[in-house]
Amino acid sequence: MIERVLAFLEQHEEEMIEIRRELHQYPELSFEEVETPKKIATYLKDLGVEVKTGVGGRGVVGYIRGAKPGKTVALRADFDALPIQEETGLSFASKTPGVMHACGHDGHTASLLLVAKALMKYKDELEGTIVLIHQFAEELAPGGAIQMIEDGCLEGVDVIYGTHLWSPFEVGEIGYTPGPAMAAADRFEIDIQGKGGHGAAPHETVDAIMVASSVVQSLQQIVSRNVDPLKAAVVTVASFHAGGPFNVISDTAKLVGTVRTFDLDLQDYIIERMEQVTKGICEAMGASYTYLYKKGYPALVNDPYETSEFARIQTASFPEQRFFQMEPVMGGEDFSYYLQHVPGTFFFTGAGNKEKGINYPHHHPKFDIDEAALLTAAKLLASSALTYLSRKKSKVGSTL
Amino acid sequence: MIERVLAFLEQHEEEMIEIRRELHQYPELSFEEVETPKKIATYLKDLGVEVKTGVGGRGVVGYIRGAKPGKTVALRADFDALPIQEETGLSFASKTPGVMHACGHDGHTASLLLVAKALMKYKDELEGTIVLIHQFAEELAPGGAIQMIEDGCLEGVDVIYGTHLWSPFEVGEIGYTPGPAMAAADRFEIDIQGKGGHGAAPHETVDAIMVASSVVQSLQQIVSRNVDPLKAAVVTVASFHAGGPFNVISDTAKLVGTVRTFDLDLQDYIIERMEQVTKGICEAMGASYTYLYKKGYPALVNDPYETSEFARIQTASFPEQRFFQMEPVMGGEDFSYYLQHVPGTFFFTGAGNKEKGINYPHHHPKFDIDEAALLTAAKLLASSALTYLSRKKSKVGSTL
Amino acid sequence: MIERVLAFLEQHEEEMIEIRRELHQYPELSFEEVETPKKIATYLKDLGVEVKTGVGGRGVVGYIRGAKPGKTVALRADFDALPIQEETGLSFASKTPGVMHACGHDGHTASLLLVAKALMKYKDELEGTIVLIHQFAEELAPGGAIQMIEDGCLEGVDVIYGTHLWSPFEVGEIGYTPGPAMAAADRFEIDIQGKGGHGAAPHETVDAIMVASSVVQSLQQIVSRNVDPLKAAVVTVASFHAGGPFNVISDTAKLVGTVRTFDLDLQDYIIERMEQVTKGICEAMGASYTYLYKKGYPALVNDPYETSEFARIQTASFPEQRFFQMEPVMGGEDFSYYLQHVPGTFFFTGAGNKEKGINYPHHHPKFDIDEAALLTAAKLLASSALTYLSRKKSKVGSTL
Amino acid sequence: MIERVLAFLEQHEEEMIEIRRELHQYPELSFEEVETPKKIATYLKDLGVEVKTGVGGRGVVGYIRGAKPGKTVALRADFDALPIQEETGLSFASKTPGVMHACGHDGHTASLLLVAKALMKYKDELEGTIVLIHQFAEELAPGGAIQMIEDGCLEGVDVIYGTHLWSPFEVGEIGYTPGPAMAAADRFEIDIQGKGGHGAAPHETVDAIMVASSVVQSLQQIVSRNVDPLKAAVVTVASFHAGGPFNVISDTAKLVGTVRTFDLDLQDYIIERMEQVTKGICEAMGASYTYLYKKGYPALVNDPYETSEFARIQTASFPEQRFFQMEPVMGGEDFSYYLQHVPGTFFFTGAGNKEKGINYPHHHPKFDIDEAALLTAAKLLASSALTYLSRKKSKVGSTL
Repeated sequence: MIERVLAFLEQHEEEMIEIRRELHQYPELSFEEVETPKKIATYLKDLGVEVKTGVGGRGVVGYIRGAKPGKTVALRADFDALPIQEETGLSFASKTPGVMHACGHDGHTASLLLVAKALMKYKDELEGTIVLIHQFAEELAPGGAIQMIEDGCLEGVDVIYGTHLWSPFEVGEIGYTPGPAMAAADRFEIDIQGKGGHGAAPHETVDAIMVASSVVQSLQQIVSRNVDPLKAAVVTVASFHAGGPFNVISDTAKLVGTVRTFDLDLQDYIIERMEQVTKGICEAMGASYTYLYKKGYPALVNDPYETSEFARIQTASFPEQRFFQMEPVMGGEDFSYYLQHVPGTFFFTGAGNKEKGINYPHHHPKFDIDEAALLTAAKLLASSALTYLSRKKSKVGSTL
Repeated sequence: MIERVLAFLEQHEEEMIEIRRELHQYPELSFEEVETPKKIATYLKDLGVEVKTGVGGRGVVGYIRGAKPGKTVALRADFDALPIQEETGLSFASKTPGVMHACGHDGHTASLLLVAKALMKYKDELEGTIVLIHQFAEELAPGGAIQMIEDGCLEGVDVIYGTHLWSPFEVGEIGYTPGPAMAAADRFEIDIQGKGGHGAAPHETVDAIMVASSVVQSLQQIVSRNVDPLKAAVVTVASFHAGGPFNVISDTAKLVGTVRTFDLDLQDYIIERMEQVTKGICEAMGASYTYLYKKGYPALVNDPYETSEFARIQTASFPEQRFFQMEPVMGGEDFSYYLQHVPGTFFFTGAGNKEKGINYPHHHPKFDIDEAALLTAAKLLASSALTYLSRKKSKVGSTL
Repeated sequence: MIERVLAFLEQHEEEMIEIRRELHQYPELSFEEVETPKKIATYLKDLGVEVKTGVGGRGVVGYIRGAKPGKTVALRADFDALPIQEETGLSFASKTPGVMHACGHDGHTASLLLVAKALMKYKDELEGTIVLIHQFAEELAPGGAIQMIEDGCLEGVDVIYGTHLWSPFEVGEIGYTPGPAMAAADRFEIDIQGKGGHGAAPHETVDAIMVASSVVQSLQQIVSRNVDPLKAAVVTVASFHAGGPFNVISDTAKLVGTVRTFDLDLQDYIIERMEQVTKGICEAMGASYTYLYKKGYPALVNDPYETSEFARIQTASFPEQRFFQMEPVMGGEDFSYYLQHVPGTFFFTGAGNKEKGINYPHHHPKFDIDEAALLTAAKLLASSALTYLSRKKSKVGSTL
Repeated sequence: MIERVLAFLEQHEEEMIEIRRELHQYPELSFEEVETPKKIATYLKDLGVEVKTGVGGRGVVGYIRGAKPGKTVALRADFDALPIQEETGLSFASKTPGVMHACGHDGHTASLLLVAKALMKYKDELEGTIVLIHQFAEELAPGGAIQMIEDGCLEGVDVIYGTHLWSPFEVGEIGYTPGPAMAAADRFEIDIQGKGGHGAAPHETVDAIMVASSVVQSLQQIVSRNVDPLKAAVVTVASFHAGGPFNVISDTAKLVGTVRTFDLDLQDYIIERMEQVTKGICEAMGASYTYLYKKGYPALVNDPYETSEFARIQTASFPEQRFFQMEPVMGGEDFSYYLQHVPGTFFFTGAGNKEKGINYPHHHPKFDIDEAALLTAAKLLASSALTYLSRKKSKVGSTL
């Protein structure tokens, strides 16, 4: 069956590209998606897929229930766009000023819709259920995933797969990472309150710049001394603003920055340590502080086993692709929420093409993808789902 | 003769007050004085004083040459105002919006004009010469003193006296300080140039905030470790500005601040050490920097002997005043330039009056003086000048 | 053939244990091994193995040349002991006071000798060559490996395997790590030279304690800011000694510590950055320094492919063992030098047994191993060698 | 009368020198003085002075009660020696190995004994009382002064004078300082308790060296930011000891140092701030600490009025001496305790003579004094006492 599904996808590559281009022309911002989910739902309904709309707000979930019993596999594609003015000059460029599919979500959606079409075609042979998660609002925290999960999109799901079209990799390259793969990207603010005064009378003040610069120095020691050297963490103070006239000691200082981690416990530990450091130094110097820590998406942690299986099986199935274990990526992705509930893996499908000049970074006004990647993504998603169902079935059988 | 001069001043207190009020209504900013020097010159000429105008630009210098030979004493009063909107509600408040005599220079001028009148009255008995230095632009570096000196106002001068009407002291209090009395108040800027980058990739950057906060910390050690504990010095980083978005490592950081010293060598040493510290830390971290140090007025260092003599003699002469040795003041004053050329002393004439609610700090929109201080200032200046001439004369005599 | 080799080993487990106990009673220190290499050479010669002695100084290398052509596999066991007074109370405890096999090298040697015996038994079927590397002086830098390699022990070798009996793991557990597996463990000394003086006159001194404590603080920023967050590194200042009487500013300060890395480039970068930091701070403060950095064994980096193959194949071959991918170990091992020349892998063979109370850490006076681990180690080394020869043969065949 | 007393002293200079040399040969350590106080008491009793011995332990107090009523003036001389092996080669060098009068106390005592002799001679004319305080144990905290005061040596005393023979000044120079003149010299210890561990596993530790070096850095900010720039203070960490083997993170660090101040409130403030800084930083980093602060002698604060009077009157009385206001001295002196109870002044009598090579610093094995200073010291003490009695008498008289 897999071979026929893949062949079907190959035959429908053109449709996939058309859908992507259609979506590309009408991008919609996170949490403002209206037409995109309608189009998705219509397409799926036309295929005969059982569809839920408004899931978690603006999400669309489709259910392809195979003729035979089996496990349940979720496939996810996000469909929101970014507040960027497109500068690609493409014939199908965005028609909405200031909004652009500059991250490939149009392609994600197109690929998954064709996967749906293919699987519906062979539904009678399907042993198990496919859940199609068309997610809104990936680009903007708190993101759509968390709400779709609350609304039940993962009910009964045994495993989940997702991919990102990735322009830093060339078409034909597939990156996977067992375990931590994308960082939690958090934001913090520390406001130091000292006591201002004349620049010539420091003894009558609590110099907020002294306090804050000491905090800046000491926060780094969390990374170098308090974090397991085998774990990755970054604490960056990205902005430091304090003071006015050259002869007035500043009463306040504001620090803003980011923390990156791949480990939930470590994240919490750093949050706590940062406050401990700030508090201790403020007390040492007679200042007070407010500390605001806002978690972004959690670290995306791929299931090691499912990722290894993905790599092992797909490497064998698609010899024309170059699979490799990639380094974790420091950026965030709310696919991480799904992986907190069910095993699965999120892999990167190369979509760059240096020869064709397609290598702008994501979120760039000239960002584009080599559309050959759409078919690859679709085939890998379909293959992952079907091999999982097949694998689990036989495994269950063998233990009986 | 001194007694008669002092009596004359007492009799003309009202005129002094009138002049001060007149000046107060028409304040002029530093380096923009036009009418004030004209008024001063006219008044002096009307007295018969030999007058030079346009000295060093906008200064007025008067010469009262006594009938008898002797030493030459300079008395200085500054006449510029500040860019402050007056809020005193006085009947003679400033008529120029946004400009105000908020530092007492109107009073200085009025006192000195009456001293001139008194001394002209007794010119025949005068043994020596009195130089009246009416200085423009004390409030704004580089100040008028330096230019008036270049233009010759101190030629032939043996000693100089000046005073500041001082609202933190009560009327009737006279503060003097042998040696260092007012600090050099300098300004510096340090621009750190690192290399910006993504907040999650510190290893690809040179984090300017880390460098600058380390500089901030280390600069303090100049004061605590490199400065003689018996000497006063302040290094204050008054502003620290760096960085923008929370996830971008800043490539630059700007530090601005002030240094205060009372000792020329120490000032130069700190200037040098600050660069050494900044350079070393930048090199340690792979950053570069620009360092800008702008000296303000130098420290005002009263001649110890003349100040002691002033204290000794005037304490005896004015028992109704409370003379005391005051702590140095961290603010600056370009009278310091005169003292680099000739001995002399700059004392503080109490002009506050808590009972009358006259105790706003200098440069405050509600700043005022108790006008009783004008007479005191005038008498002290006159007495200082005359006792100096008398003292020097007899001294010379005694050695013959 | 593999099955028969493994069966042979099982049948000779007792001999293996006897050899280990014999070696255990007569431990010899690194670079002082005399009797141990003699015993090894004699044993091998008695088996008919072609033996070189004095390799690189005190090493013994045996060659088992198979009847059929093929690749060359090296197996390595180290045989030196430690300057520790044994406190195990074992019947076969060390008879040499103050010297003890407290790290399991006796077991390594015994296992490899029996592997030799087994392979000699089936030499006629062997397709390729086995090089037995009995290494001296692993415990003491610069170690024996580097000298044995210079002396040619890796000539013609295609792959190398080695194992460490490991008391922190239970018997039956096998740990492997593709890529960086054991850290480079280096030592540094930083001597700060300031200028001493009276504790009350800091301005006449360059306070070495201030300089050194600033260096301590800044070195940490190398880890937190200059190292890729995805790479592991540790910079530890382990000792700080400076100063004498409470009222004398110290002219010198001595810092000693360690650096751990898994990446050669990163190691070199840290070495360079540490000096840059020290130099910059010393210059900032007017001090000088000497910086001594002594590399220990380099990071042990297992060949990712061979390690994966080892894991894949042996996991299948020895279902009674629990194989798992372990975290890198921060300790050092001079097996790393072999891996700089040829691919291969170094794995950890569990030798602890909590139930039997065998769980003292390595280098502990009561360290012991569960001797069941000897057989496991021997079987894994033999299996690794034979499957490699078989694998490479077939691979070559398949491409023809 | 003063003239006659001074003349008497001049006539007895030789005796003064003899006594000094006698004392010099038989120095006794602080709190171990036995023979010296006996000699002093005997001398005084022989003069007819009323003597108390064992005052506060080992002190000797003599009372010269004038024939006429008046005020009471105390004169103090200390008589202990130092644990230093003399290397002067003088004919009257110390006969006690390892003990030496290397600070001039032998001279202080000799001078005061002759003052006693002179005053006894003119006792009948004396209007008031002279208290001769021969103090033990000045060199070693807690010193003898505090105990002699508790034992009543200042009862009824109106004013006190003391001097130090001072080799950094030339014979003929007299230094005085109104107000703070000698620093409080205190000692502190800070023990940081972290948590040790392996040098490669900082995350399992609290690195005491990191904590302590941060404390070292931050303590300096007390001086540069919390102390009035016009006040002198020094905080010196003189020793920093932590850690052992290069690969073990130290669990403890010990800081020892000194604090110097001239102001009691500032001293207390620094004591408090130091603990606040240490506590805050320890809390920031998860360490604990013990903080021990041991006050040495308090700052010696001369009475400004009495010092000015001393300067004014003695300058006039001894035109052959060069009186000058000297900078405060950072060393300590327990004369400070007397000044906490009664007004008075402690001046420095120049005893160096560069031409004669007499310029070794105090406490040096080759320290010596120009014995001409003995007479000067005696004359100044006698003159101070007598002019005080005379001054107070007339003053009292004038107000009646």
